[in-house]
Amino acid sequence: MVEHAPGSPARFRFDTADPVLAGAAWSRLAEPGDVVAGALVAALGAGEALAWVAGAAARPGEASAELARLEPGARVARTLAGEMVTGETVTVHDRHAGGSPGAGRSAAPGTGTHSPARALMAGVRRWASRLEGLAPRQDLEALERLDGTLLLPGDAGWPGGLDALGPAAPHALWVRGRGDLAGLSRRAVALVGSRASTSYGERVARDLASGLAARGFTVVSGGAHGIDAEAHRAALAVDGSTLVLLASGVDRLYPSGNRRLMETAMSGGAVVAEVPPGSTPFRQRFLARNRIIAALGSATVVVEAAMRSGALSTANHATRLLRPVGAVPGPVTSMASAGCHELLRSGAAVCVTDAAEAAELAGGATDAAPARHGEHRPGDGLDPSAKAVLDALPVRRGAPVESVARVAGLAVDETRAKLGRLLLAGLAEKEGGAWRRGSR
Amino acid sequence: MVEHAPGSPARFRFDTADPVLAGAAWSRLAEPGDVVAGALVAALGAGEALAWVAGAAARPGEASAELARLEPGARVARTLAGEMVTGETVTVHDRHAGGSPGAGRSAAPGTGTHSPARALMAGVRRWASRLEGLAPRQDLEALERLDGTLLLPGDAGWPGGLDALGPAAPHALWVRGRGDLAGLSRRAVALVGSRASTSYGERVARDLASGLAARGFTVVSGGAHGIDAEAHRAALAVDGSTLVLLASGVDRLYPSGNRRLMETAMSGGAVVAEVPPGSTPFRQRFLARNRIIAALGSATVVVEAAMRSGALSTANHATRLLRPVGAVPGPVTSMASAGCHELLRSGAAVCVTDAAEAAELAGGATDAAPARHGEHRPGDGLDPSAKAVLDALPVRRGAPVESVARVAGLAVDETRAKLGRLLLAGLAEKEGGAWRRGSR
Repeated sequence: MVEHAPGSPARFRFDTADPVLAGAAWSRLAEPGDVVAGALVAALGAGEALAWVAGAAARPGEASAELARLEPGARVARTLAGEMVTGETVTVHDRHAGGSPGAGRSAAPGTGTHSPARALMAGVRRWASRLEGLAPRQDLEALERLDGTLLLPGDAGWPGGLDALGPAAPHALWVRGRGDLAGLSRRAVALVGSRASTSYGERVARDLASGLAARGFTVVSGGAHGIDAEAHRAALAVDGSTLVLLASGVDRLYPSGNRRLMETAMSGGAVVAEVPPGSTPFRQRFLARNRIIAALGSATVVVEAAMRSGALSTANHATRLLRPVGAVPGPVTSMASAGCHELLRSGAAVCVTDAAEAAELAGGATDAAPARHGEHRPGDGLDPSAKAVLDALPVRRGAPVESVARVAGLAVDETRAKLGRLLLAGLAEKEGGAWRRGSR
Repeated sequence: MVEHAPGSPARFRFDTADPVLAGAAWSRLAEPGDVVAGALVAALGAGEALAWVAGAAARPGEASAELARLEPGARVARTLAGEMVTGETVTVHDRHAGGSPGAGRSAAPGTGTHSPARALMAGVRRWASRLEGLAPRQDLEALERLDGTLLLPGDAGWPGGLDALGPAAPHALWVRGRGDLAGLSRRAVALVGSRASTSYGERVARDLASGLAARGFTVVSGGAHGIDAEAHRAALAVDGSTLVLLASGVDRLYPSGNRRLMETAMSGGAVVAEVPPGSTPFRQRFLARNRIIAALGSATVVVEAAMRSGALSTANHATRLLRPVGAVPGPVTSMASAGCHELLRSGAAVCVTDAAEAAELAGGATDAAPARHGEHRPGDGLDPSAKAVLDALPVRRGAPVESVARVAGLAVDETRAKLGRLLLAGLAEKEGGAWRRGSR
């Protein structure tokens, strides 16, 4: 709660200088992935940023005027300008619009967001409606009641992979289970897919997840029905090291059908949210949450995805983070694999058919998948001419060297030499002057 | 038959100056894809080349001595040297060793073949054993009895696609059915796959073939059991324009189980061999035959292929001819698709899931496959902020603008504006001051 008279800056009922309270506050104030908030906090620090927003909300006129010429506008502008140079848009909604791989890249910038100052004032208007409700201490108490931990950037347990998100990185992580996300995500693969999965996809998800867990990888996913749940479950069965990323608060284990699964994940792994307890999941938050799943994995593998599956947005985020993406093919007659096939067609993803190949995608040189070979066949080791002679050898009644040579299309002397070798290898037999295939 | 005393050059019982007889003779003399023979014929013409081989076979010493300093050695050397520069090897057996995509490229050059003169004399020794049996007139009579046609390079009906094979191009084509292979292959796709096919692969092969035929493409394949047969059959059902490439003579419709299928193909399409009637199929000839299938198609699409399927050698030939290759994915649990998945993993093939995508691979701009979209969803057309407001709208009891703004994480004024738009779109309803989701 804040008390303030209109026109006077909000006076917070908590110490904004306390980094834990300030970080927790920002995770409620701004929608996930709001890069304007990220840039502001990066420039001023969470506490000072809060105070500035309260002031700007109270006197927007002065604030925007000040922004044009003064700090902190200039500092924020530098960060934001960097963002805009990348061609990315600077509101969470633009960043995470659509589920298709192309959508993120092609999304039009939010209106007016191309001027840092205007982007910042638009941010202030977005955040203002939540200033009054800010109560980070209560949110932290709710987390404590759940035996949870709050992680802030820079904490020992903070997963370094999230830094790649820049100003779109979360302000804080609300964690239930093992708090050492840094350790859990050091060797991790994001394994995602459709809720509307087929038994084929679920089987493959289980095979990949258990194979990855057996290789010491943490399986990161969204805890949804279908592929996500199968991936978590199979990883739990091996060593329990799996990360469930929620779009809601960690007090709301959504979907409720996977509640027990998530509670199990809290022992060996963790259930994680970037929004405070009490937050409800919306479509935009699911899409924003996917960027964290992609950032926590060294690679993202999509098992089954229809054309508009959210799993494709996770793949899209991984691509923008320059992390390798894998797609598991399936029957072309299955709509549940259509999204994976699009990823393969567009070249956005590598074809992944087993855990070894998924590990290769995510891991170091030691994780290279073994080369595939077909079954061994008689004569495999032979040089081409010897193969031709072997092909030309009659199976039943033997033939003289000359006719074998004619059939093989080789010189007589060369044929004779090759026949000698085939004889030693047991691939040819000689009876009088007649040659035929060997018994083995 | 030829009559000759040892040491004296063979005197042929046919007019080597007759290009038809000479071409037919070479198609029996040299194994398919023998680039040394191809280079020799390219340099001297089929007739002169025959005469020279007869002489060289009779007096190998003189011939190889002459080759070192004189024509035709120099001329052949130039052609062969060009071949060797490409890093390809110059005996049919090397060129077509192995079935795996890599094998062709990585095959070691045949011994001694890096000197054009030695390659040529090795060729003479190969061909010598068949000189005596040469009887092109009889082979042509056998073809006539089958109502067949002989095509030679340069003939109106000769398929131009084969020129890309260079000295590995066939010396002649023995055709039963429509003789206009040029017309039949002007718009053609090679559709190949395993004999050990699954019902899934067979269904996809039929869908692709009928879809391609409906788009005016000729379906080229090897007439084998499994995928090949399904592809031919489906194309026949549409307009009958399919090409069956045999590894044996056209008098031997192998495998016999597909005899009727091939006879049907002769009406709207053709059954084609590069070896004369009476020739039997060997593994090497199957592999050599695959280069023609690849060269006749503007693209090659592999439907189902195990790790060592011959279909992979066809894909490999297409790659070397710089023709696009497509691979149809399947369940990763199906070994019958493992070869296709390897093609996708290595980047040698594009993922193909339907006839439109296969046509796009093979055809011109007009054949571009339609972009894929998922099903339409309410609010698809909206800008991101409007989407956020839509997400934030309560379904049952309405809420004031301020709370909608807070939930959406947007400014109140912007939220009010978006609500207005949603109202017009019927996506929001207003009751008093309370907003909720629209009925539609």
